[in-house]
Amino acid sequence: MIEKETPIQARPDTFLKDFSENSSVRARFEKMIRAAQDSVCAAIEEVDGGRFKEDVWSRPGGGGGISRVLQDGSVFEKAGVNVSVVYGVMPPEAYRAAKPSQNGNAADESFKPGPVPFFAAGISSVLHPKNPFAPTLHFNYRYFETDPPKDSPGAPRQWWFGGGTDFTPAYVFEEDVKHFHSVQKTACDKFDSSFYPRFKKWCDDYFYIKHRGERRGLGGIFFDDLNDYDQEMLLSFAKECANSVIPAYIPIIEKRKDTPFTDRHKAWQQLRRGRYVEFNLVYDRGTTFGLKTGGRIESILVSLPLTARWEYDHQPEEGSEEWKLLDACINPKEWL
Amino acid sequence: MIEKETPIQARPDTFLKDFSENSSVRARFEKMIRAAQDSVCAAIEEVDGGRFKEDVWSRPGGGGGISRVLQDGSVFEKAGVNVSVVYGVMPPEAYRAAKPSQNGNAADESFKPGPVPFFAAGISSVLHPKNPFAPTLHFNYRYFETDPPKDSPGAPRQWWFGGGTDFTPAYVFEEDVKHFHSVQKTACDKFDSSFYPRFKKWCDDYFYIKHRGERRGLGGIFFDDLNDYDQEMLLSFAKECANSVIPAYIPIIEKRKDTPFTDRHKAWQQLRRGRYVEFNLVYDRGTTFGLKTGGRIESILVSLPLTARWEYDHQPEEGSEEWKLLDACINPKEWL
Repeated sequence: MIEKETPIQARPDTFLKDFSENSSVRARFEKMIRAAQDSVCAAIEEVDGGRFKEDVWSRPGGGGGISRVLQDGSVFEKAGVNVSVVYGVMPPEAYRAAKPSQNGNAADESFKPGPVPFFAAGISSVLHPKNPFAPTLHFNYRYFETDPPKDSPGAPRQWWFGGGTDFTPAYVFEEDVKHFHSVQKTACDKFDSSFYPRFKKWCDDYFYIKHRGERRGLGGIFFDDLNDYDQEMLLSFAKECANSVIPAYIPIIEKRKDTPFTDRHKAWQQLRRGRYVEFNLVYDRGTTFGLKTGGRIESILVSLPLTARWEYDHQPEEGSEEWKLLDACINPKEWL
Repeated sequence: MIEKETPIQARPDTFLKDFSENSSVRARFEKMIRAAQDSVCAAIEEVDGGRFKEDVWSRPGGGGGISRVLQDGSVFEKAGVNVSVVYGVMPPEAYRAAKPSQNGNAADESFKPGPVPFFAAGISSVLHPKNPFAPTLHFNYRYFETDPPKDSPGAPRQWWFGGGTDFTPAYVFEEDVKHFHSVQKTACDKFDSSFYPRFKKWCDDYFYIKHRGERRGLGGIFFDDLNDYDQEMLLSFAKECANSVIPAYIPIIEKRKDTPFTDRHKAWQQLRRGRYVEFNLVYDRGTTFGLKTGGRIESILVSLPLTARWEYDHQPEEGSEEWKLLDACINPKEWL
């Protein structure tokens, strides 16, 4: 098990030990995610009027994190924006769960290294608004490095990037979905014209609730284990994606946060939140990895909504607004 | 994947194909669980005033089930009582997930049989009342048989029993917990004086939410893969346990269902329901097996509460009533 975190009083300027690492990818990635945390939290506070509560923690083995949560605000039911920068030595089973595989499938079970020195940094956020017409947003950008396992010092250092931004409304407003996806595409197109179609499909495939035959939402972009491009290019790409969160999301929230709604709309939103819980607890790689390795549970599970609902055998009436959303979760569409 | 179920109009007298099996353990177990379903549903309807909705389904490969749900009643938020009697041929990976292991741990991964003819029957129920002082109850009794794998016809037929009854209040009323556990002990003691202490501990160990370091509730009895006693004795024991559900639970519901409560009590109940969801989706063997093998999702997930809640970093004040429940979930007690 990865060691227990302990709360600390003040945010350090960096969670890295070695200040001479300043120009390293590690250091620049930390700087990027911390700036993104600040700007996203400021934008959410501005639209909500409430304030984030901050918890800073460190790990005895190395690194730490900053968890920020705004709960029961005027616009947001629960908004969590976490960064963590951790390093040390991970047990082989955790490495197997974390290491990249060729095609995003389960890692190769046959590879059994000894304890592996690692570095992992990421920003992770889930924003659940109160209004059922305002969509939930999730984004996560992470960078991972391993040193060679101690028992095979000749092996290469590995690194990879992962992440994505995806969006989960309870009701489909086509203009919102198009706006959200077009901001993702614009960010992708700055780097490689293959990125948006590839990462859009990856997102539809990843956020799949297999036992339901439906996706948790209307997608966005998702990529994982990305290491077959220039490292600097991928660092810039991750930064561009993180910087696209506010323009992709905040205008939609501004537009929908005060829309009048009925109990029926709220109950449907709550049912979709139930699906969100199912995806996160059963399939999400970060969540299941965190639960297994004994990460900071409150930070990991801050992604769960404040409230959720499960009705037995609920079937929206064909043609209804609820059915339209479900149909788009079952049959992913090209929005652009 | 196990084949998809299809709805059917009327309850058959038996889901077994061969009526000459009448005196078999399979047939008598089916009869027992169907009688238990009828009597528990009748008792719940009497206390609630509402009516169960029934869905009957069959599997092309063999067998079927009866799902009954009472949702949003006057006393119960959601009450599900399901029986299923299924058989056919299961894929090796499903068999590995289902087969007994020596000590209740994960099955032996090295055993790789071909498709295995199986029979599985069970009753499974979760009863979530509305009043935060009225406890949630879960019980499940099941019987499993396999024929020898087709590629090793000389291997023995295997059978085993599993099940238990456990109870999950949001607040501790010591007299309720003692009553509940004493009914379990009385049922156990009729068969073997070692059963209650052994199955009480097994229950505390099984319903453990590892990532929280706490149990989902205040236990009861649990046993799995039981095949080292006389088969007739275990059939009678399962029947005794199923017949103990009503005397263990209904008097507590009668006593607590109308207790006045505040928003604080309700929010705490909802948080504990969130833990219930975490246990069921992440750890419960029946649920995770069902999700993997493509069982009837609505029947599997009827165990989830109608509503649940996740607050960031909620810590009950030491000495409060909420803290007392949490403490008993962290440090299981001997109640008798």
